[in-house]
Amino acid sequence: MTTMFASTTRKTPHSGKRRICFPITSRAYYGRSQLLIRKLHDHPGIELELMLGGSILLDKYSRHIADDIEAGGFTISASLFNVIEGGNHVAMAKTACLTALEFTNGFHAADPDVVVICGDRFEQLAIAMAAAYLNKTIAHIEGGDVTGSIDESVRHAITKLAHIHFVTNDDAHRRVLAMGEDPKYVFTTGSLDVEVASQVAAGITSDGVNSYGVGHEIDVTRPFLLVIQHPVTTEAENRRHLEDTLRAVSSLDMPVIWIWPNPDAGTGEMADSLRHFRENVPDAVRKMRFITDVPVHAFIALLKVAACLIGNSSAGIKECSYLGTPVVNIGARQQGRLHADNVVHAGYDRGEILASVRRQIAHGRFAPSHIYYRAGASQAIVDVLAGSALYTQKRFCDNAEAGVRT
Amino acid sequence: MTTMFASTTRKTPHSGKRRICFPITSRAYYGRSQLLIRKLHDHPGIELELMLGGSILLDKYSRHIADDIEAGGFTISASLFNVIEGGNHVAMAKTACLTALEFTNGFHAADPDVVVICGDRFEQLAIAMAAAYLNKTIAHIEGGDVTGSIDESVRHAITKLAHIHFVTNDDAHRRVLAMGEDPKYVFTTGSLDVEVASQVAAGITSDGVNSYGVGHEIDVTRPFLLVIQHPVTTEAENRRHLEDTLRAVSSLDMPVIWIWPNPDAGTGEMADSLRHFRENVPDAVRKMRFITDVPVHAFIALLKVAACLIGNSSAGIKECSYLGTPVVNIGARQQGRLHADNVVHAGYDRGEILASVRRQIAHGRFAPSHIYYRAGASQAIVDVLAGSALYTQKRFCDNAEAGVRT
Amino acid sequence: MTTMFASTTRKTPHSGKRRICFPITSRAYYGRSQLLIRKLHDHPGIELELMLGGSILLDKYSRHIADDIEAGGFTISASLFNVIEGGNHVAMAKTACLTALEFTNGFHAADPDVVVICGDRFEQLAIAMAAAYLNKTIAHIEGGDVTGSIDESVRHAITKLAHIHFVTNDDAHRRVLAMGEDPKYVFTTGSLDVEVASQVAAGITSDGVNSYGVGHEIDVTRPFLLVIQHPVTTEAENRRHLEDTLRAVSSLDMPVIWIWPNPDAGTGEMADSLRHFRENVPDAVRKMRFITDVPVHAFIALLKVAACLIGNSSAGIKECSYLGTPVVNIGARQQGRLHADNVVHAGYDRGEILASVRRQIAHGRFAPSHIYYRAGASQAIVDVLAGSALYTQKRFCDNAEAGVRT
Amino acid sequence: MTTMFASTTRKTPHSGKRRICFPITSRAYYGRSQLLIRKLHDHPGIELELMLGGSILLDKYSRHIADDIEAGGFTISASLFNVIEGGNHVAMAKTACLTALEFTNGFHAADPDVVVICGDRFEQLAIAMAAAYLNKTIAHIEGGDVTGSIDESVRHAITKLAHIHFVTNDDAHRRVLAMGEDPKYVFTTGSLDVEVASQVAAGITSDGVNSYGVGHEIDVTRPFLLVIQHPVTTEAENRRHLEDTLRAVSSLDMPVIWIWPNPDAGTGEMADSLRHFRENVPDAVRKMRFITDVPVHAFIALLKVAACLIGNSSAGIKECSYLGTPVVNIGARQQGRLHADNVVHAGYDRGEILASVRRQIAHGRFAPSHIYYRAGASQAIVDVLAGSALYTQKRFCDNAEAGVRT
Repeated sequence: MTTMFASTTRKTPHSGKRRICFPITSRAYYGRSQLLIRKLHDHPGIELELMLGGSILLDKYSRHIADDIEAGGFTISASLFNVIEGGNHVAMAKTACLTALEFTNGFHAADPDVVVICGDRFEQLAIAMAAAYLNKTIAHIEGGDVTGSIDESVRHAITKLAHIHFVTNDDAHRRVLAMGEDPKYVFTTGSLDVEVASQVAAGITSDGVNSYGVGHEIDVTRPFLLVIQHPVTTEAENRRHLEDTLRAVSSLDMPVIWIWPNPDAGTGEMADSLRHFRENVPDAVRKMRFITDVPVHAFIALLKVAACLIGNSSAGIKECSYLGTPVVNIGARQQGRLHADNVVHAGYDRGEILASVRRQIAHGRFAPSHIYYRAGASQAIVDVLAGSALYTQKRFCDNAEAGVRT
Repeated sequence: MTTMFASTTRKTPHSGKRRICFPITSRAYYGRSQLLIRKLHDHPGIELELMLGGSILLDKYSRHIADDIEAGGFTISASLFNVIEGGNHVAMAKTACLTALEFTNGFHAADPDVVVICGDRFEQLAIAMAAAYLNKTIAHIEGGDVTGSIDESVRHAITKLAHIHFVTNDDAHRRVLAMGEDPKYVFTTGSLDVEVASQVAAGITSDGVNSYGVGHEIDVTRPFLLVIQHPVTTEAENRRHLEDTLRAVSSLDMPVIWIWPNPDAGTGEMADSLRHFRENVPDAVRKMRFITDVPVHAFIALLKVAACLIGNSSAGIKECSYLGTPVVNIGARQQGRLHADNVVHAGYDRGEILASVRRQIAHGRFAPSHIYYRAGASQAIVDVLAGSALYTQKRFCDNAEAGVRT
Repeated sequence: MTTMFASTTRKTPHSGKRRICFPITSRAYYGRSQLLIRKLHDHPGIELELMLGGSILLDKYSRHIADDIEAGGFTISASLFNVIEGGNHVAMAKTACLTALEFTNGFHAADPDVVVICGDRFEQLAIAMAAAYLNKTIAHIEGGDVTGSIDESVRHAITKLAHIHFVTNDDAHRRVLAMGEDPKYVFTTGSLDVEVASQVAAGITSDGVNSYGVGHEIDVTRPFLLVIQHPVTTEAENRRHLEDTLRAVSSLDMPVIWIWPNPDAGTGEMADSLRHFRENVPDAVRKMRFITDVPVHAFIALLKVAACLIGNSSAGIKECSYLGTPVVNIGARQQGRLHADNVVHAGYDRGEILASVRRQIAHGRFAPSHIYYRAGASQAIVDVLAGSALYTQKRFCDNAEAGVRT
Repeated sequence: MTTMFASTTRKTPHSGKRRICFPITSRAYYGRSQLLIRKLHDHPGIELELMLGGSILLDKYSRHIADDIEAGGFTISASLFNVIEGGNHVAMAKTACLTALEFTNGFHAADPDVVVICGDRFEQLAIAMAAAYLNKTIAHIEGGDVTGSIDESVRHAITKLAHIHFVTNDDAHRRVLAMGEDPKYVFTTGSLDVEVASQVAAGITSDGVNSYGVGHEIDVTRPFLLVIQHPVTTEAENRRHLEDTLRAVSSLDMPVIWIWPNPDAGTGEMADSLRHFRENVPDAVRKMRFITDVPVHAFIALLKVAACLIGNSSAGIKECSYLGTPVVNIGARQQGRLHADNVVHAGYDRGEILASVRRQIAHGRFAPSHIYYRAGASQAIVDVLAGSALYTQKRFCDNAEAGVRT
């Protein structure tokens, strides 16, 4: 079949600018990408199109994102509702497929030179797949890390579809090369999250934090714990694991800020569990404040003053390494990931969690580490995206054989 | 959200047998998997479900496949029409997405222990993605090879989603390990295609071959050429490349059997071009027979007697290495792939193709090579699928650091 | 294109039984169809397949449905997650499309003789469309009524796709004929909801009702109000309308059971509003109990004793006509629908609602009406589905010209 | 769920102009809508967006459409590949669902005031459904007719979703009213096809017609037959019916122009059959020219001079009534449709077809009829679309009871 109209969909003639599509599918990605997006938008040689899909469109707290985006003069070329309800693996898989289907149309219409894929969320692999089939050059941010959960597979599969790699640390760089990527196109730029964290100067007041969420009033000038525990999609016991954490934390009798888990397979039962405790075991949560969402600057400010971060958020590994915040990392989600001294690992055992938190509180803050930090991460990415030669046909580079250190 | 009914979809209680889903999306995969499917079906510890989708359902010559399947007593658990017309990249990408969406439902209903992914067709990555998100153990056949076109990316991305790897040669084994796969789960079993080729004893008569397709009558006892040139989805010039091949072949003034290209992005314009020649340049195709499809045994029999195979089919690399058939491999599609002495590479230049074919005809048949052959490939795969411990959580294995030879 | 495998998907050979597919996409449909499903299942000439999709799979209170279904020995041939999040019109439309896509596969696999479509939910039109394109005979339950919202269009469009019509009242019968349907295939069987209501003998205790939901404890031996206000998808002011009802009801200072709205476009903001009142205006909801879901027998028992039903539920029009419960029907959702004397209509004005409720409480219960009731509704439907000749090619019947009374 | 970004997708601020989306999914619709589209585009109060999907994007002969559209300065807001291969009912149903899914995104982005739905192709109902769920005002062209096949159901279901109706004849007007539509919004404007036919002045030369298609050279100055036989999707015997027509026509030993059937369920086997005759029964088709596509002006010119039109095209009923061309209409596809004296109906019987064609040739051309013609059809539609008050909430109008003549 011939495809007469395919060419008619490029809405605007090429201006000589390099056209970059940036799919954003979660608030977290928007938060960490703010500096990058701003610099891409301001670059004279780049035409930036933001494409929104997935959970970011469903987020009640995303109003400020919309305002940001509009105030920033950004172009949103598509807003695609494609999250299938169910909170289970079937719904997750189908969400990824539908997302890819719709982003295919979006890419077909926008006809970008480069598609930027962030991190390792399941729908980002689907989007990368769509971009690959459309012969687009794919730039991947944060490949090469080792973690637990399905993210581990997703991240490396994206690497094998991507053409340009921005990694956050030397270990990741080595793994991306081992996987056969072209050394000329692998760049260790440091973490965008950490860059954002390094630039947030403002603190947060008690009034500020208490304007978010529900529950116990927090006094940020006094020691408090911060908990973020996301579901691990490859595990069946998410609810029990969450309850073990909750009971361990509760028994410390300290004020707690509990950040609601991300929307993902398994989130539903975790959210149910938290609601259950609030309704039926009020004593267990009496010193807890539950927050579904905070702006990125407030989140960083909380990380800076929290006595300990507990759970399985990547912020414990990345931002907190730079900020020196003590972290008790629970379970498999971040397992194997490069981390600094600020992180203590604990299994899902209540006693082990409790002991680890006590140890971290006793230790207090750590010296900052730069394992995930390079100055000017976002500018480095922009420079490559604006300037490097683009290619689409990949070929496995036998870096080990070629003597490249992997 | 809770998911009350998710568990009700497992139609039959677990019998203690290991349940294996085998998605088949092209006739080629069915052909090369015949021995394997038969052995899986006959294994007392395995419950096999075939799932059909993609181009195999659209294939006019698939009637004998349906008959085979029914005669064989196989269970087809799903037949999913999901090929989107267009013959371009958009249609290809959307086909993959729709395929994955529907196979998600299929996997959810069948609840297999293992999903078997074959090769590197674009929809197989989408199916692998769906299976990965459903926490299924994925077995991948024919990973680790290096080729051109989008297949190169697709193949390695599947590797990074898969848990058990069956590779066809030592180079592929080394690459799969370099990419961080667990050495305990990487098996060099040889090529299923070559195993099938090694077992086809019957020859083919002129009457036999002339019962397929249209055009010039072929005398198989006299030297003839065999041409198979598929589109390369990452290239724009498929039509021109095909015409260069056609003119080169035509100028040799030998009988030619031309096998129609696979359905893929780019096939439409190549098919148009062949039709154009038949209608408007009859002299150029006067000694050519055009066949859209032949059963696998007839195809092998033709490979055994052809004076030279010309084009970019993997059969030139794999089956013909074992059979010793001279091959002129054109362009990027198989570029970088391990090959035996029987293969001469040529660019898309007409003169270069012509010279290469002449050289190969002058040389005649080659000694068989076993680079892609191991005895009992299908049995080896069945043994692993039936017996190995299954896992779902992947973790990058630093094989280089661990001293595993990659 | 030929379709070789299409025929291989009929899983079981025709047994001479008539095969009936019954898609269930909401708990409400399951509730009202219980008697019918049981009789279809028990009929010796019928092979019944239930297909589940849409919100019924997401319903936290659906556990008892799953238990019912399994205990009843029913066959569930498909469980399809296809609700797209967003709670807006885009999500609703896309949910319908995805539902239809997946039910197409389900119908293709099950190959039914008849597909039963219930009511007027948006996804039922999509399913009917899929069935029509597959040349299935479509039986439609509850066509011909006039109401507000998009349901009005959906219901009549389904009528024009359906071949057999089961209507609940004489007005509906007349309209279905006016629309050109074949008089031989239009049956006034009465309402299944009302039949179910007529057969629920058990009452409900205070303990019983207080075991559902959260909030104020209800004493069912004392007068209480029952509120059910669903979003009207064609209106923008659902949140304001809900708040007007809430404030009107609150000012009566009576105990209130508030049943959570159905999942639909607009539900999100209504649920937000209810949560907002609970958190921030506790005084307004101090005598209210909020229940997201009750089993059908408990619901009927509540209707029987409620002092007044307020809102826009079809139960006010149908079940309550038979039960004699006073109803204040608010706004456009049921507008134009045939109703008995028990219904007073009110606009969205707070004062008007208040006055109407007062008037209804003062009046007390009404004499039962049989406008929606015929004895043996479910049996009548089964008899037609089992016995009538089936056809697929429709033709507009000019009933007015033909002298059929419409 | 709230939907923060929903409002950000309206790409351009409302200019005060009425925004009209016009989905075009087949070449036939483009042909008949040319005058209308031009006038809509030129109207100062209207902003027109064309949305392309379905088979029009796959049409090899659509190049001139693309050129037309670009030359005309029209805005194409979406080009959506959504035809699923298979040529059977499953593929047709799924194509409709995918089309609706993608047009939902298109409507969401374009945010039109009115969506124009043409005719009765299966995907148009799906698009209408999407538009209805998005609360758009729907204008339907060519409702109310009676025909055979699934078109009959589709057409009336669209009527029940649409708000503004443009019908081509008085019978249709009466039926649309009987179905409960608002008399103020039903307009008898005549047929756009006939209006186009009435404005084509140019004839066609033998060279002209022979520049299209393959086969026998046609001398248009001598009597020839024109055949167009589409599949009837509700029938199983399309191939046999086509062959009966072919043999009947062949036995007349006259030159024949055979226009290839539309892409639809059943087309594949009909096209196979035609190819089979060309390859294997060359004598039967020796005087036939096969044309897959002709521009609309050439088609009209052929209708004007053909000795008889044979088959089941709506052109026989509509355009030929105005042009006076003798028509033998075969089978159920147009059954029941209002027609003029130029049409003779025949069953699928070869002898009956033959006799009917002979009778029509003997009769010669008929006097023009205006049953489908009103002067200024397209202008009348534009005037209503530009000027009438728009509404979205439908309500069944009891026109019979209200004394409106239906």
